[in-house]
Formats: sequence, C-alpha cells, structure tokens
Amino acid sequence: MESTVSWIDRGRERFVQELVAWCKIPAISSDPAHKADVVANAEHLAAELRRLKADRVEVWPTKGHPAVFASFMHAPGKPTLLVYGHHDVQPVDPLNEWISPPFEPAIRDGRMWGRGVVDDKGQVWIHVKAIEAFLETAKKLPINIKLIVEGEEEVGSENLEELMKTHAADLVADFVCVSDTAMFGRGIPSLCVGLRGLMYLEVVVEGPKSDLHSGSFGGGVANPVNALARMIARLHDDQGKVLVPGFYDKVVELTAAERAEIASLPFDEKEWLAQTGCPATFGESGFSTLERVWARPTLDCNGIAGGFQGEGSKTIIPARAMAKISCRLVPHQEPEEIERLVSQYLTKIAPPGVNVKVIRHHGGRPYLAPTDHPVFEVAKRAFAKAFGRPTVFIREGGSIPFVRTIADATGKPCLLMGFGQPDENAHAPNEWLDLENFHLGIKSAAYLYDELSRLPAK
Amino acid sequence: MESTVSWIDRGRERFVQELVAWCKIPAISSDPAHKADVVANAEHLAAELRRLKADRVEVWPTKGHPAVFASFMHAPGKPTLLVYGHHDVQPVDPLNEWISPPFEPAIRDGRMWGRGVVDDKGQVWIHVKAIEAFLETAKKLPINIKLIVEGEEEVGSENLEELMKTHAADLVADFVCVSDTAMFGRGIPSLCVGLRGLMYLEVVVEGPKSDLHSGSFGGGVANPVNALARMIARLHDDQGKVLVPGFYDKVVELTAAERAEIASLPFDEKEWLAQTGCPATFGESGFSTLERVWARPTLDCNGIAGGFQGEGSKTIIPARAMAKISCRLVPHQEPEEIERLVSQYLTKIAPPGVNVKVIRHHGGRPYLAPTDHPVFEVAKRAFAKAFGRPTVFIREGGSIPFVRTIADATGKPCLLMGFGQPDENAHAPNEWLDLENFHLGIKSAAYLYDELSRLPAK
Repeated sequence: MESTVSWIDRGRERFVQELVAWCKIPAISSDPAHKADVVANAEHLAAELRRLKADRVEVWPTKGHPAVFASFMHAPGKPTLLVYGHHDVQPVDPLNEWISPPFEPAIRDGRMWGRGVVDDKGQVWIHVKAIEAFLETAKKLPINIKLIVEGEEEVGSENLEELMKTHAADLVADFVCVSDTAMFGRGIPSLCVGLRGLMYLEVVVEGPKSDLHSGSFGGGVANPVNALARMIARLHDDQGKVLVPGFYDKVVELTAAERAEIASLPFDEKEWLAQTGCPATFGESGFSTLERVWARPTLDCNGIAGGFQGEGSKTIIPARAMAKISCRLVPHQEPEEIERLVSQYLTKIAPPGVNVKVIRHHGGRPYLAPTDHPVFEVAKRAFAKAFGRPTVFIREGGSIPFVRTIADATGKPCLLMGFGQPDENAHAPNEWLDLENFHLGIKSAAYLYDELSRLPAK
Repeated sequence: MESTVSWIDRGRERFVQELVAWCKIPAISSDPAHKADVVANAEHLAAELRRLKADRVEVWPTKGHPAVFASFMHAPGKPTLLVYGHHDVQPVDPLNEWISPPFEPAIRDGRMWGRGVVDDKGQVWIHVKAIEAFLETAKKLPINIKLIVEGEEEVGSENLEELMKTHAADLVADFVCVSDTAMFGRGIPSLCVGLRGLMYLEVVVEGPKSDLHSGSFGGGVANPVNALARMIARLHDDQGKVLVPGFYDKVVELTAAERAEIASLPFDEKEWLAQTGCPATFGESGFSTLERVWARPTLDCNGIAGGFQGEGSKTIIPARAMAKISCRLVPHQEPEEIERLVSQYLTKIAPPGVNVKVIRHHGGRPYLAPTDHPVFEVAKRAFAKAFGRPTVFIREGGSIPFVRTIADATGKPCLLMGFGQPDENAHAPNEWLDLENFHLGIKSAAYLYDELSRLPAK
C-alpha cells in the first residue's frame, strides 16, 4: 500500500487538472439543449477508463442520457465491488450569482469551484484515480471493480431501473459503494446510512385564456396566482407539518436509540444556520433540525411562476400560475403513493373559478442501510487510515434513487462513502469541492479496495 | 356640421394609416429600455399637432416620461374643453401569445391589432382628427380646446400631479373630457361615471442567501415560496373577501338606486365570462359581477416568481420569492392608507424563518362623476348623433389617476367618453381597436365640440 499511497501524493496536482478538464463539459441532464454535452461527458470518462485499460468500457445508451460502465476483473477469488456515481450535473441558474463561470472550474481557497465538481464528477474521479494508483504501482487491483456512472441522476434516474434489468448480469457484485454524499463536517469521515426519497410534481392553475386587465376584470373572476397560493398554503400547518391526508401514514418513526445517536453528533446548529443565511431554523415541530432533515419527510415548493415578473408594475390578472412541488420521503413512503396523495389533495382543495392540472416528474425511493453488516467495519478502517479519525454514521436528506434500486435488486449492502461538504452548494450557484477531501478521498478509496480484499468473495 | 362630418367620412382610411404609423413606436413606459421610444412617441404626436397649427404645442418634461400639451384657443367667448389622454403603452409580454407583432399594427376583421391601438393612442387620435376636421372644413373650432397627453399613465401617472401644479394656469378649462375607457358593448355609446383607484406594491420574501439543495436542507429551514403563498392565502377568505383589517372601512356602499341602475343594463354574464375564458365567475359574495368589478375593491396578485421556473425539475429551496400585489379601490379608499394597511398586515402575517420586505409602487385615487351636471346631457346628445343610440352610464373597474386629480384640482366635471370595447385586451396580448368605433369616435368628438359651443363659458 505504501507505494500506492505515495503515488497518490505525487499525482495530487495532476488529478486536480484532470478534473478541471472534465468539469468544463456542461452536462446538464435536465436541459434538452445540453443533450449532446451529456453524451460528450460520458465519452470523456469512457476515454479515461480505456486509457487505464479496463477490461470492459461501454457507454450504455438509455431513452434519456447514457451511462458509462467499466470493469476491472483481474482479481480471481477476490470480492467484487460495484462503484456507482453519476456524470450529469444540475442546472446553473441563477447564473449571475456565480463568482466564477460554472463551466470554467476555478481554484480558490483550497477549493475547486464549478458545476459538478463535487456532485458528482469529483467523487467519480476519486475512484478512477484510486484504481489508476493500484494499476501504476501494483500493476493490478486487490479486488475486482465494476463502475457504473449514470447520466440521469439529477433528473431522477428515470431509466436506471431498466438499465439495471438489461445489464443485471454485468452488475453482479458483493458490495456496492456510492460516492455522492457529503461528510458530516470537514475532516470527519462519514458513512451515510440513510437517504430520503423524492416525489416531484408540477401543479398548473389556469384561469383566463390570456392575461386580463385587473381593473376591467378584477373582482369578477378568480386569480390563478391567488388560487395557487391558497392551495400551497393548505399543504402545511403553521408549524410546518404536511397536511396532505395520509402523508405520514407509512413513515417509520425514529427509535429512541436513533434519536440518541443523532443527538450525540457534534452538530453546531448555529453554524449550520449561518451557512444557509436563513434568519432562523424552521420545520415540523417536535423534532431537532438534524432529525427533520435526515429522517422526516418534507414538502417544498422548488419554484413558482405566474403573471408579471418584470421591473415595475403591470396590472393584470394572470392567465396561469405554476408551482414545482417536491417531497423528500423517508421509509416506507413510496413516491408513487405520495404523488397520488398530493395530487388528489391539490385537486380537492383547488378553489372555485380555476382549472388545476398536475404533471408528474420523477421520483425516488428512500433508503436505510443494514449497518450491522461487516462491510461497515471495513469501511471505517479504510477511512481511519486515510483521515486519521473515527467515522460517524450520518444520514443524508437528499436522494440517490440508485441506492434503493440496487439494494432492492441485489440485497447487497451499499456503502455511502461521500467526500462532499455540507455547505458545498451542490444544487446552487458556486458549487465547490474541498481539494484536501478530494485527495484524501482517493486514498480512502484505495484503502477501501485493499481492506475489502481481505473479506471473503460471494 | 355636415361638411365636417362628411370630411371625417372621406378621411376614414387615412386616419387608420396615421394611427398605424404612431403605434409602431414601442412607448412602454414601465421599461427603462424604452425611455427614448416614449420621447419619440411624444414628439410624433407633437409634430402632428404642429402640422394642425395649434397655437401652442409643447412637450413637457417630467422626472419620468414627457407629456404633450397643445391648445387651440381661437373661439373667444366660447367654453374651453380640456382633453386628456396618454401616449404611453403597457408592456407586451408574454410576447409569444401575440398573433401579429405588437408594434407592427395589423388590420384584420375590421380591427387594428397592436399595443396601444385602443389604450390609448387610438382614442387620442380620435380627438386630433376631430380637431383637424373642423380646421379643414370650418377653418376654426367651435370651442377652445386644450390637449394634455401624458406619458406615464401605464405606470401610475407618478409625475402628473406635479406637472398639473406647474402648469395649473395652462390647464384651466370649463369641462374635461377623457377618452381612455371602453363602451358597455359594441354600438352602445357609454359615459363612464366611476373609476376605481389603484394601490400597487411588491412583497419580497427572503430566506437562504442562495438557493439550497432541498434534500440537504429541506425540513430544516423555511421555504420563501411556501411562506409567500401562506401570506397571499391569508389576504382573502374563501369567498374572495379581503381580510386585511380596515380594508373596507372607508368603502362607500352602493345605494339601492345604483344597484337597480346597474342591474338594468343589458349585461350578458355568460358572454362576459366567455370572453375571459375563465371556467366560472368568482368574487366577493353578496354582489353581482358588475357590482364587484365596478364598485367593490379588490386585491389581486399580478405576478409571482421564485425558485426554479425552467423545464424539468430542480430540487432547491429558493433563496427568495416575490409577488406583485395590487388593489383596485373605490371611494373613499385612499391608496396611501390601503398601502399602509396591506403592508402592515403582510408584515404581521409573515411566517417565521423568513424576512419580508414591501416595496411601494404607484397608486391612484378612485372617482365618481357628478352626473347631475348639464354637460352629461350635452355628451348624450353628441353620442346620439354619432351612434344613433341612447347613451348608458357605466363605471370602469380600471383606474385613470388623472381624472381624480383634475376633478380635485378644478372642481370641474369630467366626461369619460371612451371608445374601447370590454374585450379589447388593453393590458394583454392582442390588443385591438374596433375601426368602426374609431370612425364614430371621431364623429362623436366633433359633435361634442359642437354641442359644447352652445353651453355658456365659465
């Protein structure tokens, strides 16, 4: 391991420059205008894997964006690790809030700034470089590794399930590792043992066929913006509890032990709040902030639009209003059921005088890891070697649909070994990657491969 | 009068082409990018008035957009009529809903289509052409006429009051005529005897300093879009009554006679509704649709914006949300007081976890005409000659701040003699002017000037 680790130290600067090059490709999967960029992005990764002489490198097409698959199967008798990541990135608006352009990654303050640097290209590159380290120093990997890097994670992994069915045999492994989460704090190695799921829909409220003069018609017809606001307001009570009937029915409540574990973490709520810039925390009463973010379901408007948004004033009754609404789900809430409950409720509470349409977007299932499996101890040892600190078990409020899908399909444990930071702006302007984490991440992955080689295969 | 009226008949086509030329200038007063266009627009009108050899033509600058003043004072001993109109126009978005471009006026189905064709350039041109008709046929006007055509009506006539103070002596007149309203229906000459006032503000709700990942933070902090929706929802009860404390305190209730008069009008609610495209009428309970639009105050969101509005999905907690909110006011509600009441209420009902800012836009006072003044009989006679039908008294739900300002300043009656149509799309895409109304409007104005010449001056 020594030569492998020192090779990683020597390559530190080159790895950063390689990641910069990859992050220049604007692989925004939600924007049809960037479809070709997502393809180019996949090909860039595939080219690097071919350079490393993986025994298989394939770009798998889907109905949407392609995934990259590679395998290094030269450790007979050793376990096989399936590493999952994604190469697509979030949209970049509001563009004017970026300090440096999102697709011209810049290095400042020990960080790389740009869209996708940490979510998730940087974390994919960590594994690619850990693999290269063994190939360059030991000429072979200590375990068998398969990589699946999809191109649709930021749009809900719509085609992933089908892809996994089609390639079920290719994806067989003993363990799964996902690097797409954040650490609890700087220098604190963290294993994420829970993820929330996602339900996403769009509600459209339509009134007049086109905008009306608010003087000539105001008072005579319903206003779609006001109507939509009334509907949104009825989704929560004043304390932030969701009012959709049945919403909490399937929620697995936190145990006393889990609540104690969460309470024991060195969580600095003041600092957490400061990083958001919000004037106060807010949410469902009866739970701590960490509990609410990690283990309670939510309902948030992700966007709203209607009528006149320009400078100055325009006196109209808007023809329509739209809101994007999503829920973060916890076990055992299922996105399809929650989507049905929310849609039914929205339709039911629609005020008179308007028409309401609900459009379904993607969803994802929540996940809880089997933390008593021995692979979690192995991962802790790898982390301890790279970071020199004990590992904490955390959860993540976000969603990675793949995790639940692979867990359901294989019954294998999934290690969520992330190298981001909680304030990394993953879905906001000025996304950044801590370059020290990036470096220690490559080492952690190398130690993990090495530690896993001592576990039995199959 | 015969030669004057037949001259108007002969010029019919030319007047249309002249109006097309003027309406090509995109004089959007609310958009700073169009500042020079509003100036060019004023100069276009001034040039026409100079061509007619008005004894004074002046472009009056203001802190905002300029007004055009002209006078024809060659009828000693005769009354003086002050004609008011505005040359600025509404914004044009959503641009993609226009069948033909807003600033390339097109003739289709006996109508002119374009921004400003009826609100209010067409109606200003009616007076200019009626003046020209007398000058070309009788070589003089039967009365003295002053024209004031402002450039800020669509942004609340912010500088009009100061302009009227500065030029108080120039604006002295015996009667005032405003042509900026709609007729009750096609071919029904209408005098508008009531206008609603306006209060306009913008409320901004701020949460995080930039958009947050809704997974990592959702449940932990307040969502500005949800918070804004809760605030808007609390502005009305389910029946459309405004809940702002004190909002109705100064409202003058309709008398039984006024309600009977309104009920007697040939109002086809089904047709009115069909023209809006709304699925149903809606508004404050206990009032008819016409009563609600003409004589009851309202509160409407004119626009709302926050977070992700693009195609697809983005899972964020938006940093901010904004709504444009305006109230139509009736006597004796004052915009300043209503603005204070609404602002205070919005601040009071702001949910925890967000900051709320209220930004004041322009306002305008409501108006009720002294319909027992003899000038209303004069106007009815002029209308009868031009349209061959009796005149109805109507109200208008919209606001023309000038009317109340000049009424307060002079104590003189104001004739609201409009030639628009209720479904003219004045503040929406596909604004249109009925060309028959345009033609009969020129005749009505000519008959009005002639009839007024038989009233005593001063």
